[in-house]
Amino acid sequence: MSERERADDTESATAATSEKLVELAKRRGYFFQSSGAYGGVGGFYTFGPQGAALKGNVEDAWRDRFAVAEGNMEIDAPTIMPEPVFEASGHLDGFDDMLVECPECGESHRADHVVEDNTEYEDAESLPIPEVEEVIAEYELVCPNCGSGLAGQAVETFNLMFATNIGPGDSDPGYMRPETAQGIFVEFPRLKEYARNQLPFGVTQIGRAYRNEISPRRSIIRTREFTQAELEYFIDPETDEPDLSSVEDVEVTLYPASEQNAEDGGEIRTTIGEAVDEGIITSPWVAYFLGVAKPWYDAVGVDMDRFRFRQHLSGERAHYASDCWDAESEVDGNWIEMAGFAYRGDYDLSKHGEHSDDRFTIFKQYDEPKTVERATVDPDMSYLGPEFGGDAQAVVQKLEDLAARDRSAFDGDAVEIDLEGETHEIPVEKTGFAVEEQTEAGEHITPHVVEPSFGVDRLVYTVLHHAYREDEVADEERTYLELEPEVAPTFVGVFPLQNDDELESQANEIVADLREVGLSVTYDDSGNIGRRYRRQDEVGTPFCVTVDYETVEDEETTVTVRERDTTDQKRLPVDDLAETLSSIREGDLEFDEL
Amino acid sequence: MSERERADDTESATAATSEKLVELAKRRGYFFQSSGAYGGVGGFYTFGPQGAALKGNVEDAWRDRFAVAEGNMEIDAPTIMPEPVFEASGHLDGFDDMLVECPECGESHRADHVVEDNTEYEDAESLPIPEVEEVIAEYELVCPNCGSGLAGQAVETFNLMFATNIGPGDSDPGYMRPETAQGIFVEFPRLKEYARNQLPFGVTQIGRAYRNEISPRRSIIRTREFTQAELEYFIDPETDEPDLSSVEDVEVTLYPASEQNAEDGGEIRTTIGEAVDEGIITSPWVAYFLGVAKPWYDAVGVDMDRFRFRQHLSGERAHYASDCWDAESEVDGNWIEMAGFAYRGDYDLSKHGEHSDDRFTIFKQYDEPKTVERATVDPDMSYLGPEFGGDAQAVVQKLEDLAARDRSAFDGDAVEIDLEGETHEIPVEKTGFAVEEQTEAGEHITPHVVEPSFGVDRLVYTVLHHAYREDEVADEERTYLELEPEVAPTFVGVFPLQNDDELESQANEIVADLREVGLSVTYDDSGNIGRRYRRQDEVGTPFCVTVDYETVEDEETTVTVRERDTTDQKRLPVDDLAETLSSIREGDLEFDEL
Repeated sequence: MSERERADDTESATAATSEKLVELAKRRGYFFQSSGAYGGVGGFYTFGPQGAALKGNVEDAWRDRFAVAEGNMEIDAPTIMPEPVFEASGHLDGFDDMLVECPECGESHRADHVVEDNTEYEDAESLPIPEVEEVIAEYELVCPNCGSGLAGQAVETFNLMFATNIGPGDSDPGYMRPETAQGIFVEFPRLKEYARNQLPFGVTQIGRAYRNEISPRRSIIRTREFTQAELEYFIDPETDEPDLSSVEDVEVTLYPASEQNAEDGGEIRTTIGEAVDEGIITSPWVAYFLGVAKPWYDAVGVDMDRFRFRQHLSGERAHYASDCWDAESEVDGNWIEMAGFAYRGDYDLSKHGEHSDDRFTIFKQYDEPKTVERATVDPDMSYLGPEFGGDAQAVVQKLEDLAARDRSAFDGDAVEIDLEGETHEIPVEKTGFAVEEQTEAGEHITPHVVEPSFGVDRLVYTVLHHAYREDEVADEERTYLELEPEVAPTFVGVFPLQNDDELESQANEIVADLREVGLSVTYDDSGNIGRRYRRQDEVGTPFCVTVDYETVEDEETTVTVRERDTTDQKRLPVDDLAETLSSIREGDLEFDEL
Repeated sequence: MSERERADDTESATAATSEKLVELAKRRGYFFQSSGAYGGVGGFYTFGPQGAALKGNVEDAWRDRFAVAEGNMEIDAPTIMPEPVFEASGHLDGFDDMLVECPECGESHRADHVVEDNTEYEDAESLPIPEVEEVIAEYELVCPNCGSGLAGQAVETFNLMFATNIGPGDSDPGYMRPETAQGIFVEFPRLKEYARNQLPFGVTQIGRAYRNEISPRRSIIRTREFTQAELEYFIDPETDEPDLSSVEDVEVTLYPASEQNAEDGGEIRTTIGEAVDEGIITSPWVAYFLGVAKPWYDAVGVDMDRFRFRQHLSGERAHYASDCWDAESEVDGNWIEMAGFAYRGDYDLSKHGEHSDDRFTIFKQYDEPKTVERATVDPDMSYLGPEFGGDAQAVVQKLEDLAARDRSAFDGDAVEIDLEGETHEIPVEKTGFAVEEQTEAGEHITPHVVEPSFGVDRLVYTVLHHAYREDEVADEERTYLELEPEVAPTFVGVFPLQNDDELESQANEIVADLREVGLSVTYDDSGNIGRRYRRQDEVGTPFCVTVDYETVEDEETTVTVRERDTTDQKRLPVDDLAETLSSIREGDLEFDEL
């Protein structure tokens, strides 16, 4: 029997949960705004002991699923990268937000947010700047800080990369990477060697990324420094196909672009297989990774009733991405983006190929060498020279282009070419036209990229939020976190009932035994036992073990094991404890079954 | 019997090892200079798949020893921190290198390095700037890049922090943290709550740190972005003592300051216990952590014959540090610093206490409340006012100070005070002097800090360098890395002998079995078996398992297991394989014993 009455779940998921969670997070060591002694700085958060452990466990779980189990390679690249990388990637020119400064108080705001928060516009980010200025004037929008009018203020673009200088002087600008992905793309020429030049292969990275937000907000949901876990999967678009059979039965809640655009549209529940068959998810590769991600999110503790995949609208999608879906979680009535899954085509590698001297291609060997016919020209310059003078080279180029494009043009006695608006006839016999056979072993292709990109901080926030519970235990209000054992910072708390040498020594032995089998254990001997239970409830520790006088006096040494969610207690022999708790941790046994 | 002849160890430890190692590191995916496609940037390195795994294993091993086993808390703080933090810490003013720019080619150099590399000065960093300028002129030192004379060029200080701006505009300067430590110190007021206000407690952090080196050099030994693992251990200097008994027998090689200063000084071999007793290590806390660190370095694969602890010379030590030792490893004849162990006193916390409004102290409760006598004054202002006019308040202050300092001054009829050079007599009866008893429960003390600070990249470099081996196998030269199983990126490679469905399927089953018991496994079916062995030798994989026709044809299913260092091979039953290799991994079994 449980001592506890469970509060209505719907009740506890009110808008106030975030506030209560942020307070708990600070008090119990999950996360808090950094540098509080100096007044804090917007957008920078420190993970305390519990938060760092939870975050580490989530990262390990991601690594197991998206790197190890998928056979991908993990790398670890610097967070500062030189300017040419971002010239190529497009971040230097395009990674901007719209900024409007208040003429009175001088505070800077995101112009699109000011518009969205005070008008019916929902996606102001996609509007051109002059239109945003017009909307601000038309609606007489005011500074959110001091209330002064913003009409007439210039809306400017602000690059979101943190800039710095590498070495003395300012001749080598560098930037904090805005995503971990560029650290992978830019090293493709080397990474492909590690993959023995065979597609497909995937490269992952877990690490810091930075965006110099104009207005960071909502705790760790929109920060200036955050952790990403990204996978760049390189494929041959012509031949590589994902193993859809392994995920086709995964049930998903989808919110496709068509439903978002429809008047009465809504989410649909389907399977990955059906969504591909019906063309809802257009890229099978994106579908594959959605199918891998969904059960993974479930396993780390995201509430599947508050989870969906939302397709990007065409205006929201990068021009090179053919399909893009976000994993979203519901938090206090708002949907927040936790991950993006994009089919990026050859955009990233071809950009670096164009901007650098290195080859961002893979040599793709044909099954058998191919014999191909190539039309070539070898013009008679003793004819072209006198005929065209300084334009002779231009004529040669024209002839080469024409031969490659349309060899039938050389079927007659003469070919026609245009030169600065005038048409010229050249006898075919003077062009040296010929069709030759060439043998080719393969071709250089630019791989396409499929990118599942996860935000770790937002996931940590979601996991905590979805685990937040309030109930009553022995007529007292209780708060606890129903965290999955796989990610909970601590799996078991061990307490001596009182300050007593014998109890403490027995408790310490148990701590050592449990650690020996790899469980994460905390020892606590301060305060009364009820307070110690509440403390572990609030940090989400699944089990507590209490050593009391029965333990040390009875013939068979037993302890009390208490389960967090039900507060049920059972007496178990100490000898079996490590094995029993390990089995529960592995999912092979339920506490109920004991 | 082994197929191999071992080359002389001393031979392979030549100055060329670093060059060969760097080449191997690049080819096999340990590390390489970043952004090579854009010509690379000095001081930034990317860890490839093998390097990221090795680095991750080293970090996990550190976490196990210095956080989990010691019961310390780990946190995860931002890498960008606001300016006031570094005003307090002293980095804004004092974290400088000496820079000299070549008047001809414009290249910047570290002036102290130019001096050290070309004169007999050994520690030019500690010289004042004018003296460095004099030495450059006197020795007619030239630019290492173009050979132009540097005499007469100004030597300037260059702050080594990467600077950036937080948010739009430049009103909020921020810096990339030069050490992870400040992320701990600045949050002390919150962290002490998590430690329930009880000293001693320790806080760890593993993460990126940044130093904008003028001349980064020597591969990953001196980079601009690197990973630190730091422990800040907060103690009550009056009462807290380390558990020296647990480390007193640890044997160490020490190079104390006295030996460095002595004409014929050298390293001494002793134990932690003796070094403390003889006063060689002056801080027992520093001694404790040296005692913990030494076997840990041994376990992760640092060669103990090329390892020592070197004491800082008094000129090299920060003014607030009372004792400081470095862990050093020998690499190609040079000693490099891998970690520092410093007793930092109350410097860090008292600086933040002075610069911020927060309390960087701990309330230390007395065992029993103390009754203390306090001398107070309560001057008669109707006397002081007319007598001293506008100076009356200053006189009150003087009287208060005097009462606190020397209550016997009030023994007579009058006290004397100095006011702007003049001595005044004030009747004691007008001062309201009294001695009162007050009861105090405790006092606010500023904890002292003991800081073991580890450089992860330099350790990774050392581990690889000390593991580098060359020998001959079957008359062919072989290179292999004798990495410890605990840190090797891969523990076992599994190969089907040939491309054959049956062999491949059996091999894949073995891979799954080995992963199930938590071993790190790689599967390789490309190239001949000898090449696959060499590949795993070069990345340092301790064991390879080959599935051949005997495996699938014999009644008892067996495979060949090959040990990396000896190249010895044994046939083992597949059924026992996972258990056997696990036992070897745990150190419970030797390959020889099979």
